[in-house]
Amino acid sequence: MWEQKNNTLYRKFEFSNFSEAFAFMTRVAIEAEKMNHHPLWTNVWNRVEIWLSTHDAGDVVTDKDRKLAEKIDALL
Amino acid sequence: MWEQKNNTLYRKFEFSNFSEAFAFMTRVAIEAEKMNHHPLWTNVWNRVEIWLSTHDAGDVVTDKDRKLAEKIDALL
Amino acid sequence: MWEQKNNTLYRKFEFSNFSEAFAFMTRVAIEAEKMNHHPLWTNVWNRVEIWLSTHDAGDVVTDKDRKLAEKIDALL
Amino acid sequence: MWEQKNNTLYRKFEFSNFSEAFAFMTRVAIEAEKMNHHPLWTNVWNRVEIWLSTHDAGDVVTDKDRKLAEKIDALL
Repeated sequence: MWEQKNNTLYRKFEFSNFSEAFAFMTRVAIEAEKMNHHPLWTNVWNRVEIWLSTHDAGDVVTDKDRKLAEKIDALL
Repeated sequence: MWEQKNNTLYRKFEFSNFSEAFAFMTRVAIEAEKMNHHPLWTNVWNRVEIWLSTHDAGDVVTDKDRKLAEKIDALL
Repeated sequence: MWEQKNNTLYRKFEFSNFSEAFAFMTRVAIEAEKMNHHPLWTNVWNRVEIWLSTHDAGDVVTDKDRKLAEKIDALL
Repeated sequence: MWEQKNNTLYRKFEFSNFSEAFAFMTRVAIEAEKMNHHPLWTNVWNRVEIWLSTHDAGDVVTDKDRKLAEKIDALL
């Protein structure tokens, strides 16, 4: 469900409401900090969009991104 | 599952891990602020305990507490 | 510091690190839910960008947006 | 400001309101997960109380607790 898109891993998530979406974001925030690898993400109401890429590698997709994507999927 | 206990509504929650417990707490925090009615609560690892009572009514259980309890249950 | 931009109120925020940025986002989330008025927002690392507009009014800036902007500013 | 109390490190924090207290809790949650060392903590309205001890060491205060206490203090 993650797509390669302009040198990022991209996925869109949809929840029942804002509260559920933000609880998910809180869990993603914790995973991101644990890996010291932070997403670019956007939220409006029940939708969250995430783009993962590795700045230090020249803004391309690396194993760090694939690992964070897996950890995010495990939250669902 | 909420019990009357020393003039509070009390319930204990158990989750798979800390991240899941804290995401739940974030949603409870939002509900509490929306009602401007805040719980006494305790967390350690995957467990959350909540005690609800109404300070302005003399620290007893009121409809405000029953309503917040319902909103919390709806998050599960 | 909020700018009118394509029929939105827009402001960019910068913090010391991700943890500080996300704590700010948690407080904005609470205010948004209290008003039942939710931002479009983006975060990456220590930066948060917020766009406010009112969907029900045809995606233009209304008093609801100006009020939420004030509440967000009060968090700083 | 942390006190030794019944084989824990204990500190009480007071904020302006619930939103500020919960934003602090979000940052402590992130630090706790990063260390995989979780507090016992209680919140009501603007007050947060934290007790740190190390379960695996027999519920006494260890360097892990002193390190988490430092990290929490750095958030203030």
